[in-house]
This record gives sequence, C-alpha cells and structure tokens, in this order.
Amino acid sequence: MSMDSFLLDRQLHRFLEEDLEHGDITTDAVFDQETASARLVAREPLVSCGMEQVAARVFCLLGGRLEFGQMAADGGRKKTGEVLLTVQGPVRTLLRGERVALNLIQRLCGIATLTRAFVDRVQGLPVQIVDTRKTTPGLRMLEKYAVRCGGGRNHRYSLSDGVMLKDNHIAACGSITKAVDRLRRRIPHTLKIEVECDTPAQVEECLACGVEIIMLDNMDTATMAEAVQRIDGKALVEASGGIKLESVRAIAETGVDFISIGGLTHSAPAVDIGMDWI
Amino acid sequence: MSMDSFLLDRQLHRFLEEDLEHGDITTDAVFDQETASARLVAREPLVSCGMEQVAARVFCLLGGRLEFGQMAADGGRKKTGEVLLTVQGPVRTLLRGERVALNLIQRLCGIATLTRAFVDRVQGLPVQIVDTRKTTPGLRMLEKYAVRCGGGRNHRYSLSDGVMLKDNHIAACGSITKAVDRLRRRIPHTLKIEVECDTPAQVEECLACGVEIIMLDNMDTATMAEAVQRIDGKALVEASGGIKLESVRAIAETGVDFISIGGLTHSAPAVDIGMDWI
Amino acid sequence: MSMDSFLLDRQLHRFLEEDLEHGDITTDAVFDQETASARLVAREPLVSCGMEQVAARVFCLLGGRLEFGQMAADGGRKKTGEVLLTVQGPVRTLLRGERVALNLIQRLCGIATLTRAFVDRVQGLPVQIVDTRKTTPGLRMLEKYAVRCGGGRNHRYSLSDGVMLKDNHIAACGSITKAVDRLRRRIPHTLKIEVECDTPAQVEECLACGVEIIMLDNMDTATMAEAVQRIDGKALVEASGGIKLESVRAIAETGVDFISIGGLTHSAPAVDIGMDWI
Amino acid sequence: MSMDSFLLDRQLHRFLEEDLEHGDITTDAVFDQETASARLVAREPLVSCGMEQVAARVFCLLGGRLEFGQMAADGGRKKTGEVLLTVQGPVRTLLRGERVALNLIQRLCGIATLTRAFVDRVQGLPVQIVDTRKTTPGLRMLEKYAVRCGGGRNHRYSLSDGVMLKDNHIAACGSITKAVDRLRRRIPHTLKIEVECDTPAQVEECLACGVEIIMLDNMDTATMAEAVQRIDGKALVEASGGIKLESVRAIAETGVDFISIGGLTHSAPAVDIGMDWI
Amino acid sequence: MSMDSFLLDRQLHRFLEEDLEHGDITTDAVFDQETASARLVAREPLVSCGMEQVAARVFCLLGGRLEFGQMAADGGRKKTGEVLLTVQGPVRTLLRGERVALNLIQRLCGIATLTRAFVDRVQGLPVQIVDTRKTTPGLRMLEKYAVRCGGGRNHRYSLSDGVMLKDNHIAACGSITKAVDRLRRRIPHTLKIEVECDTPAQVEECLACGVEIIMLDNMDTATMAEAVQRIDGKALVEASGGIKLESVRAIAETGVDFISIGGLTHSAPAVDIGMDWI
Amino acid sequence: MSMDSFLLDRQLHRFLEEDLEHGDITTDAVFDQETASARLVAREPLVSCGMEQVAARVFCLLGGRLEFGQMAADGGRKKTGEVLLTVQGPVRTLLRGERVALNLIQRLCGIATLTRAFVDRVQGLPVQIVDTRKTTPGLRMLEKYAVRCGGGRNHRYSLSDGVMLKDNHIAACGSITKAVDRLRRRIPHTLKIEVECDTPAQVEECLACGVEIIMLDNMDTATMAEAVQRIDGKALVEASGGIKLESVRAIAETGVDFISIGGLTHSAPAVDIGMDWI
Repeated sequence: MSMDSFLLDRQLHRFLEEDLEHGDITTDAVFDQETASARLVAREPLVSCGMEQVAARVFCLLGGRLEFGQMAADGGRKKTGEVLLTVQGPVRTLLRGERVALNLIQRLCGIATLTRAFVDRVQGLPVQIVDTRKTTPGLRMLEKYAVRCGGGRNHRYSLSDGVMLKDNHIAACGSITKAVDRLRRRIPHTLKIEVECDTPAQVEECLACGVEIIMLDNMDTATMAEAVQRIDGKALVEASGGIKLESVRAIAETGVDFISIGGLTHSAPAVDIGMDWI
Repeated sequence: MSMDSFLLDRQLHRFLEEDLEHGDITTDAVFDQETASARLVAREPLVSCGMEQVAARVFCLLGGRLEFGQMAADGGRKKTGEVLLTVQGPVRTLLRGERVALNLIQRLCGIATLTRAFVDRVQGLPVQIVDTRKTTPGLRMLEKYAVRCGGGRNHRYSLSDGVMLKDNHIAACGSITKAVDRLRRRIPHTLKIEVECDTPAQVEECLACGVEIIMLDNMDTATMAEAVQRIDGKALVEASGGIKLESVRAIAETGVDFISIGGLTHSAPAVDIGMDWI
Repeated sequence: MSMDSFLLDRQLHRFLEEDLEHGDITTDAVFDQETASARLVAREPLVSCGMEQVAARVFCLLGGRLEFGQMAADGGRKKTGEVLLTVQGPVRTLLRGERVALNLIQRLCGIATLTRAFVDRVQGLPVQIVDTRKTTPGLRMLEKYAVRCGGGRNHRYSLSDGVMLKDNHIAACGSITKAVDRLRRRIPHTLKIEVECDTPAQVEECLACGVEIIMLDNMDTATMAEAVQRIDGKALVEASGGIKLESVRAIAETGVDFISIGGLTHSAPAVDIGMDWI
Repeated sequence: MSMDSFLLDRQLHRFLEEDLEHGDITTDAVFDQETASARLVAREPLVSCGMEQVAARVFCLLGGRLEFGQMAADGGRKKTGEVLLTVQGPVRTLLRGERVALNLIQRLCGIATLTRAFVDRVQGLPVQIVDTRKTTPGLRMLEKYAVRCGGGRNHRYSLSDGVMLKDNHIAACGSITKAVDRLRRRIPHTLKIEVECDTPAQVEECLACGVEIIMLDNMDTATMAEAVQRIDGKALVEASGGIKLESVRAIAETGVDFISIGGLTHSAPAVDIGMDWI
Repeated sequence: MSMDSFLLDRQLHRFLEEDLEHGDITTDAVFDQETASARLVAREPLVSCGMEQVAARVFCLLGGRLEFGQMAADGGRKKTGEVLLTVQGPVRTLLRGERVALNLIQRLCGIATLTRAFVDRVQGLPVQIVDTRKTTPGLRMLEKYAVRCGGGRNHRYSLSDGVMLKDNHIAACGSITKAVDRLRRRIPHTLKIEVECDTPAQVEECLACGVEIIMLDNMDTATMAEAVQRIDGKALVEASGGIKLESVRAIAETGVDFISIGGLTHSAPAVDIGMDWI
Repeated sequence: MSMDSFLLDRQLHRFLEEDLEHGDITTDAVFDQETASARLVAREPLVSCGMEQVAARVFCLLGGRLEFGQMAADGGRKKTGEVLLTVQGPVRTLLRGERVALNLIQRLCGIATLTRAFVDRVQGLPVQIVDTRKTTPGLRMLEKYAVRCGGGRNHRYSLSDGVMLKDNHIAACGSITKAVDRLRRRIPHTLKIEVECDTPAQVEECLACGVEIIMLDNMDTATMAEAVQRIDGKALVEASGGIKLESVRAIAETGVDFISIGGLTHSAPAVDIGMDWI
C-alpha cells in the first residue's frame, strides 16, 4: 500500500530546495557538528501518515548519520501527546528538515484523519469512501496515499488513467450517447467509462449506453435512492457533490457503491504535530 | 506586487504534467477542434487571486488560440455568482486545464480570503498580519502571493533569507546570548535577527543582545502587553502562536507590530469556484 | 487523436540535445544565414505518422523563420516517391534537425505501416489490433500514437493505468483467485482487471472470479476458439503471444475481441524516408 | 569499454518513470514484502549486452535488497535457454522493473547480435563494421555500446564530435572544395574531415582538398574498388548505403577500411528474452 | 560554515556532464579496472578551499571505491609543494574527474587567496571585507563559500534576500525618499534597507529616511571619512567601488563597517594546483 | 560561428534563477509598469562578445515588450565609452536582468579581449591560438565562443570529442606506444590522437606510433624549435604550458602550428561594462 520511494524522492528534493534555497543561514551560523535526539509528537488526536516514507526520508536526504527509534505505522490512530517518530542525528540536519517534514506530515495526517472520520461514519454499510482529483497541485501521490491511510480508496489518479464524462463534456459534445459512442471507439479496453449525471433522465441514458459507472452528482437522497434502485446493479454507482461528515451516512444508506469527496484533499485542515528535543 | 512569471511557468508545467500524465483520454476521444467559451464563477464570497497569472496562464501553456475577456483583479472582493474570468478557446484546452486551474485558484483565493478576514479584524490598528513558512510544500511562492493579495505581508521566504532563532535552536545552543553572538559573526549584515521568546526573561535577554525582532510566542495578552511596554520600540515585536480570527484583535491591541499566522496558509479552506460554458 | 504537444516538446528537446551536444560543428562552419527549401520523401510505401507534430516541430524548436508547405496527414498511405513534408527555412536549422526528425519519423511510420498491415489482414472481422508495453524506452507516447495512426488501438499505457495479472504475478501470489481478491479490495473502481491465462483451467478460474478481461496467452487456435465459446461474452477476450502477419487472421477468426502484438513496437523495421533540397 | 554509469542512471530513471507513472497498481495491490528469485533467459541465440549495467541496474534503482548470481558478460554468445542473469530480491521490485529491463536488453542484445552477424561475415578482412547516427532517439549511448559489444566500432557520436559533409551540405554550399576550405578555418584541429561521395569525380575533389576520410555512398562494388585504388591510402575509405548481410563481404573485399551500417541500430529486431521465477 | 552538500551535488553533476558529454573516450580506451593513488598539490602559495566538499566529492560522484588520505582544511594557508588531497581509487575515475575537480578548486582557492590578502591588509581595524553579486553565473554558492574561507563575509546572496537601492533604482524612481517609502510598505520586516550613495546629499537623505545600511559608492577617502562621521552610528556604513589591495587599508581607516569588493569573485586569478600520481 | 540558442536558453534560465531565487524584492516593491531606456557601455577598451545572444536574450527571457537599438557585433573592438547595446522596456525587466547580463558579458568580453591580445602578438605568423578545457565549470560553451570572438580557435570541447594522452595517462599505462595501440583499436576513426610530450624522446616515440598531433608541454623554445624540425610536418605541433603575452611570440616563432593557453579562460579578468539609463 506504500508509495514508490523511487518516485517520492524527487518530490522531497524539490520541497527541500524550496525551503533551503541557498542554505539555512541561522542553523549554519549557530551549529557545527553537534548531534541531538528529537521526537515528533501528536498535539491533537490524529491518524498517522508518512512517518517513515516522508518525515524520516526528509532527514535522510539532508545527510549525516541518523538513527530512528519509534516510527508510527501508517494508518494508526494516535492520541494527543503520543510520539510519532524519534530520531537521533546532526542538529543541523534536524533543524534544516524540521519545517518541510512537519509541513508535509501535518497535511497528510490531516487528510488521513478526515478520511478516517468519513469512513467511520459509514461503518457497516457496503460503501467505499473515495477521493477525487481535487488534490493540491504537486502533492497528488502523497495526498492519495494519505486517503488510503485513512481507510479510503482512490478514484482515478489523473486524466490519463480514468475516463469520466463530466457536465462540461456532455454539454460541449451534445449528448451522453454521442460522447460514449466516441469513447468506445477510442479508449483502451482496460478502462471503464464513468458518467456524471445530474438527473434521472441522464441515468436512463447511461443505462441505455451500457456505461459502467454512474456518478450521481449533487442529487438529494430521495432521488439518489430511486436512481440506485433503477440502476439495480447494472452499473457501479458513485455519489458526489459537497458531501459533509453530517450527510455522508444518509447518502451511504441510499445504497450507492462509492462516495467521492473532494474535501478529503482540498479542505482537510492540517493537524498539529510538534518537534521537540528529547 | 505580482509574481515573476519566469519563475511561475516551471511550476505550472509540473502541475499540468501531474494531472495529464500521458494525456487526457476522455477529452481526446470525445473532442477534436471544437472551440467554446467558458467562465470561472465565484460560488461563494471571496477575495480574488491568480486569475491572470495562474488560471489564464494554465490554459495558455496547453496551447491553441485563446481570448480572455473579463479577468478579476488580484485582491478584489467578489460576491457569489460574480464572474472571475472568461475565456474562449479550444474545448480540448479548456477541459484539460480546468482541474489544475481550479485546484490552484480555489486554494489561492481561499488564502487571500482568510488573510483579508484577519486584516479586516485589526482594521485601524498599527499592526501588520504576516504569514509564516507553514506553506504547502511546492506552493510557497503562490501562497505567499495570495497572502499579499489578501492584504497581508510576507515574513521571510525560506531558511536562506531570514534569521530566526526558534526554541529548538536556543535549547540546542544553550542560550540566546550565545546563539546571537555566533550569528553576528557570520550572517550577512543585511539581515535582522529575530528570536522566538516564550518568557519575559527571554525578552530581557534579547534586549540585552540588541536583537532586532522579538517574537512573542504563545503568550497570553497580558504578558504580551507587558513585553511590548518593556521593549518600548527597541526592537520590532511580533506575536505568534495559534492565533484565530476571534483572538486576533485582542492581540493586536497589545501593541505588537506584526502578527504572524501559520493558519493563513496551512489551513485555509479552498473556496468554491466553478467553470461553466457560456 | 493527436498527442499533447505540451508533453511532446520536452522529449523532442532531449532528442535534439542528444544529437547536438554542444553544437553542429560541420554546419556551423560551412553555413551562415542561407535559407533553402527541403522536402521529406517516402522511399518506400508507408503509412504516414508525425509530419506535423514531430518532424515540423523538430525544425521549429531549432529556431528561425520556417514555412511549411505540404504536410501528409497522419494515417495516410503514401507510395514511393510521394512527398511527406515541404519546408523552407535556414539551412542551418534544416541540417541540424534532419537526423533527429528522420530517426523519429522513420521509426513512427514503420510502426504505423506494420500496424496497418495487421489491421488490413483482419479486415471485416469484429476484432481490434492493440499494442503492448513492449515499446522503446523513452518513446512510448510516440509509439502508441503511431499504432493509432496505423489503425490499431492502445492497450494500457503503463503500470499505473491498467491492471494485469501476468504469469509471474500468479505464480508468486499462489492463485488467480487470491490475487483477484486482493486487487478488488485496493484498485480504483474505474479499472477493469485483466488476467493472462495459459490454460483452459485458468480461464475457468477467471470466470469464477468475474475477471473483466481474459487474455489467452500463446494458445493454439483450437484451444482459443474453445475458450472464446466458454467465456461467451462474460469477459472481453484478448489473444496474445508471438502473433505474426501470417497467423493473425486465423487468430481473429477464433472470435477474440482483441489481439495484442508486442512486435508492433519492438520489432517494426524503420521505413526509408529521405530529405532532399528542392 | 563499458558505459559511464554516472551518465546512464539518469536515463534509466526516465525509462522507469515512463512505465511506472504514479506506481505499479497491480503489484502494489497483490504483494507486500515477499521476496523471490528470478532469472533472465535467452529464448533464442543472441549476443549478450547490458546484463550488469542495464538490467541489474534497473532493479537496483527500484530499491530493496538485491543479490545477483549469474550475470552474462557483455559480448558473449548465448544459446537458446541459457541464463543471462539471476537475481533475488523483493517481488515488488522484480515485477516493477521486469518490463523496462526486458525492453532495454531485448533491444540491446538485438543490436549486438546483428552487429556480430555482420562482423562474422567479414572475418579475416582488414575492415571494420561501424555504426551511424541512425540510432533510436534517446538511446544513442546504449545502442552505440551494443554495437561495440557485437564487435563493431563506433562512428562519430553526434553532430559535435565529428565533421562530415553530406550530400545536402555540398549541394547547399556549392562545392566540396569550398566547404572543406571553410571547415579547415574553423573546426578544432583534433577532428578529421569526412566527405560523402556519390561519384568518382567527387572522390578526386576530396583527394585534391586533402580530406582525411572519404565515404563512398551507395556505389556499386566495381566503382568502389576503383575508388579505393585511386585513393591508395591517402585517405581512410568508408563504404555506406543500404548494406545488408548478403552484400557486406563483397563490399569489404573492395578494400574499404570501414563499412558503416545504419541498420545496425535502426532496424535490428528485438531478441526474445524472458524472465521466470526460479 | 560549510555548504549544504544536498544543494551542491546537483551542480557538480552538471559540471561533470559538461566535461564528460557521452564519456571519456581516451581513458575508456586505455584503461580498464586499474587503480592508482593521486595527490593534489599546491603549485603556488594559496588558501585552501573545497578539498572535501568539491574535489573529493567530484571523484565520489564518478563511482568506484575511493579512499581519501590527507585533506587540507578549508581556509588553511598552504605553501608551494604542499599536498592538498590524496586519493586512491580507479584510474578511470581519477582521470575522468581530474579536470572538473581542478577547474573548480583552482578558482575557489583563487578567490579564497585573494580574499585573505584583502583581509590581511585591514588587520586590526574594525571592518569586514564582504563580497557582492558579481559572481560567476552558476557558481554563486561555491564562490561565496570561498570568500568565507578566505576570511571574508557574505553580502546578500541574491535579489531575493537583500534590499538594495542602486543608482538605477533611484534614478528611475525619482528619489531615495520615495523609493524607501515604497519599500517600507512592502518588504519583509526581517530585511534591512541598503542604499547606494554617490554624494553627501544622498547620505543626508538616507539618514532622514532611517535607512539601515548606507553604501558609499566610489567616494574618495576624505569624503568617505566625513560621511562616516556624519552617519555616526545611525546606520551601518559600507564602502564600495573599484577597491584594490593597494587602496583597501586607507578606505578601512575612514571608519566604514564593511568594504564590498566585486573583484573578489569576478577577477580573482585561478591558482595553480596539479594532480600527480603517487 | 554563433552559439546554438536552443542550447543556450537553458543555461541562461539557470543563471537567472540563481540570482532571482523567489523574485527581486527591491524592484518589485519600488516599480510597477514603468518603462525606460538603458544602454550598456564599455568602461575600458574591449573586444565585444555576447550582446545579442547573451545580454539581449537575458532581458527577453524575463518578459515584457523590449526593443533593442544598437547592438555591438561579436568580435568588434570597442573603446572606453562606446555603447554596446541599447534597450527599451519595462524597468522591472531591465533591473532584474542587469546583474546576470553584466556578470556574463563582462567575463565573455574579458576572454575575447585577452584572446585578441594573444592573437595580435603572433600576427603574421602561421600559428593559431587555441583554448583548453580549463574553462569555468558550467560556462564552457560560452567561454569557447568568446575565444572564437577574440580571434582564437577551439581545441576539443570535452572528454568526448577529442583524444589526448596526458602525462597521467602515459604514466599509468606504461608507455605512449602501448596507450596509442589501445586507442587505435577503440576510438572512432574520425578523431585524431594527440599526445602530450615533455621530452624529445617522447616526441620520437610519438613519431614512431604515427600520432597525429604532438603537444610540446612546458618546453623551452630551443627544445621546441628542435622538436618542430624533427617532426617536420609528420604531425601537427601544439605548444602548451604557462604561456604568457610576453612569451607567446617567441613560442610562435619556433614554428609550432598551435599554441594552447589555459589562461584565456581560467584567468582572464572581467572587463568593466556599465548599464545606465538613457
């Protein structure tokens, strides 16, 4: 379930360069070869994400001999005050990497924590909470990983690996039928076709075309429940559109298979994590 | 006040590559040379940021003949339903760029809007709202620009262009005095020294060392007000630490010169902006 | 159906840098500002691919004022001696770009031509000729485009956008059923699952698991025909494994939906195209 | 004779990124920390190329603890069924890297094998088989290495490190004499001048100018033999133009010093190599 | 005081690629797996800079097992004939890296040596020798480090981390007062403002605006001394403009705090360092 | 004779990023959309190099509408006070680019001017002044161009495009004869072999091996003259080693064909060029 470190390193490099520019002038002026031990501590309850592949890796990229002690597993629930990571190494490395490491894991744990909250709300129901492409530009791989750590599933990753007709495609093309027809003649046969529907009539059109996934966009729960019944297993059903913690269970109870939530990634608040010397 | 487009393009390229990977298979299958007109619309009240340098530029990088009509000025307040940008061009370009453009400006307008809210709360007081390095990795230039669009000011950009002794530096070095002494012998003379203080005793030590900026970290307003009086113009004073919209005015009234708020960038919720065909 | 020029330019840059290194010393020593007109000519029958997006673009990236006259459409059949592209511009640009342009289009036209030959062989049958991931490293986007120009279809692009259990996956995991079960719990719901089968027993196991695409790997046509009958529309069927021009029609007649052919990209001989002054 | 691994790694990275994009979803879903042993096996007779620097390196770049057993030496002849490489390591690493490793070595061994075939045909004659710049864009360093592994020699690498007047240069400049004169005044004195000649008259002109290498382009063997006699050691002589396995010995017998063959790199079919679990 | 190796490696890679292009054909043809021991020797008196972070690192990046013996400390004075570095490793690595390593350290030691000469001239006076942005494009981090090794201090690094109004800014803006006013409203509060003054009147204007650093540009020493008295500790004072070894002490005696010298980096002659086998 | 702008732009981008980091805070705070006219003026006699391809291009890369008036031709001699370039455009662009443009052309004109001085000293003699690989890392293409602008010629560019046996190669290999023998069997036939000789005995060995270029390294002029006579046109002769303006003519008079001078690039002082508003 982990990320490919091969792909991750290049990104972490860039983030370090953004914060280091030509060097850390404070730390370089004050410290030389000193070593120290530090720990990352949860300052509020959270679901852990990225201790090994992100935080520890950030310090490793900055160099010097580092030893890691505790390392919270991805996906684990942590209480206020619990230790997420302990590391011993050069003071210069620890101080240079602190901000980048924290900026990343606070955001990732924030996403994992919010995802977990949604997943918990629908417990016991045969539904999956999934993310969207509404991720922070440049952080998609990391944020989609955080969603998985929170118990969610990933929707398509990019415009390349999934086919979705959205309202703007349908409007510009003229009709769902016409667009689906063009898709069938051109896309790889390994991909399903998903169509965003705003109305029961569009759902009917999708069923007529044999669309594999029907997204019910911004429908009220009654309409949604009717649509699910009408579809009756002939396509996967995905609910979408402004879904909140308060409303997610009601939506799940309509019988949809997936609930996709942009807010998992675009609006999850960062959780508070601190770095202290031991 | 605008960003350097020379520096911005490389980032926008990367964001587009993240979302496009090897191409937009849906759009490429459905459309050919069709053109259309679209508009970006505020779906909630917001402060505008990035219409020209970010949203319009994203479309330009994807190619084809584009014409832009309306373009909201950075920093302007917009109501629900107001148009932020209109653009005419190839359907393929508009659909490919839509998500990246929206992901960026929803976040940037979110930051500008939140900053503006803080700035409005302290109206009439001689204080500046400033940001921190708690930005999204990879988006610092854009997010710091959004803070300026919201009426805020920028603190140091990176570890390279500002000198700040934080609690971890002081603890590892032994004392403020010792650390400041080392700094004075090594840093460029063009930079001021800022020290994070948790206690009045530390403030005293800073004054004794001639520190140029004293940050009062997580102090209650009474202690803060005393510190301001004690400093009495001998250093710039910056308040920091978990500052909320509800508490910002009280903090400003202590007489500090700057209030730095990490939440401007690490936890501003994205605002809702939609793209529709005209 | 065209490629995203945004994504293509970076590659063309790299190819030019490979051939130019620090400059074209012959051309730079012999020529100054002279201009000339040149044409690219088919020296054997071929299917055209890449005149506009590749050959013309290579010259454009090298700079100077260029005018293009004729430009063969992608996918068109050309006879020996037919002109594919005419261009007028600086001699230095034309000579610098000649080899890179030719190396690319000779290969791409070679792939398009071979694909077209396969497609022609199965004319009239309800089957699609598709490619594989056996492309030249670094040229996948271009080579998969060439397959489309030859009338073929694209299979998955990379390890990211398609799910395929191959013999090595199955052997290492223990069974198809076990592997499919793990996939169902983790992969995006937008992707179908494809399984490579060497035996009728494996086909049965796939049907039992509800696999969406069954690949019949290196089976003889009799076994293949039986498998198609057994599957009976419950999954898409793909034939694969050492398929040649001579054998492709017999395979198509078994009733498979797709025939995937690695040789389209890994062994298509380059076609002969020359550049002459006009 | 080996390649510079410093220069190679960057290319291998790119090829892996092309095939991995955002990760190997099949392998990541099915496997966790399992290890396995695999071998690469020749499925047809071939000359080995790239086991250590390419195939093994691809797996190393993907990470994890790897142990390599057998590793065929570059340039060695292998029969069907012979093992080229054995490796033990994480299943995830082996499956992720399989396709990129195979795509590369099948192509490189193909080139080495074809080169060896040409070299064998001219055995006993004082002639060298050399390559050209007709390499696959992006793979020049690797393909020229494969030519060396097959017993061939390398011609110039790029437009930067060799001077060659081709028909288009001569036509655009007016005459060989004029072009050579300009070259003599400008190019580094470390480089020889080579001129492509289509006729005996051009050979005469080259001799009059003191050209160091004369290429006889697409001449019949009788004309070639006469040219060699006329040149009589005053310049190196290179034959070029559509040379096949069938014709190469007759050309070599004309007494030329070098035979350059574009087909070594542009049209060598990939050889068949498989990866199996042990 | 050392550089961030994380930031340095990317540069060293580029420099090696510039000199290696597609490989070292001489060394590759002549040597195979031989090892040897080499030393870098000062061929004239110099201040050492870069043995560990630059020269040794260049060899490490080229690969193979390397052992380093002596390594001169940065900032140490060395006489003709003294050894700066000893290294044992593959002949191929040592010969490939020789030129890049020497080109870099000859330049860096040259800068350190010249800086040391300036610093020695002002010994005993309360003044600092500082550099400028007149560095070699692409080498700023390295050259500014060499200045520190020679006992100098660094001025601002780039246009991003320091604020300086130069003659062209003042002329284009209209007046110092107007420009300083705009700066005060926009720049981070962590930065001091520096203004270049050509006349006593400009110095007065700076004092009136509360400018933190006043640069006296190209003034004669009498005028400079008067300015220092007039400023009287109300701002830091920096002398600049065509300062030579012969004139630096007289300038220092005027009482300025800093003397900035572009020639430290733009015109320091390379010192002679050789590499010999042991 | 000009550089390939395709290759140059990437370098200029990097140099601008080095100086701009995240933006020009002074200029951005003080100016908005103002335009101005500026000129670059020679402040000492010099040979011009890089006005169009470097200085003007730097401004172009920063954006905005620019108009160039005068532009000194590369290689032209200019007196103190002569205008090298005039440009009209946005104040922000002109101020941002000033330092990078000046840093580059001051260095390039410095090299061109020094080269011209050497070339002038040997006027009338049949000898060429050539450069070496002792260039500033990262600036080789530019610096070798500057040598050509000064009337010099270029030696090999990198380790890839020329074959030279230096003292360290010979010592490690055992003998010139042995090393040359290995080279003849492996290097491209398009390259000449050059050998560095310290003694007449080595010259003899080179002649016996048929080496194409003999470098006389650090010989006195008498020994050199004898060597030239002994070689007697059987190889090109190059003098090298610590050659100064004072000694160059005497060396030229020995009859050598080329004089290579590392100091052209490693120690040419920057010339003084200023930018003023018009």
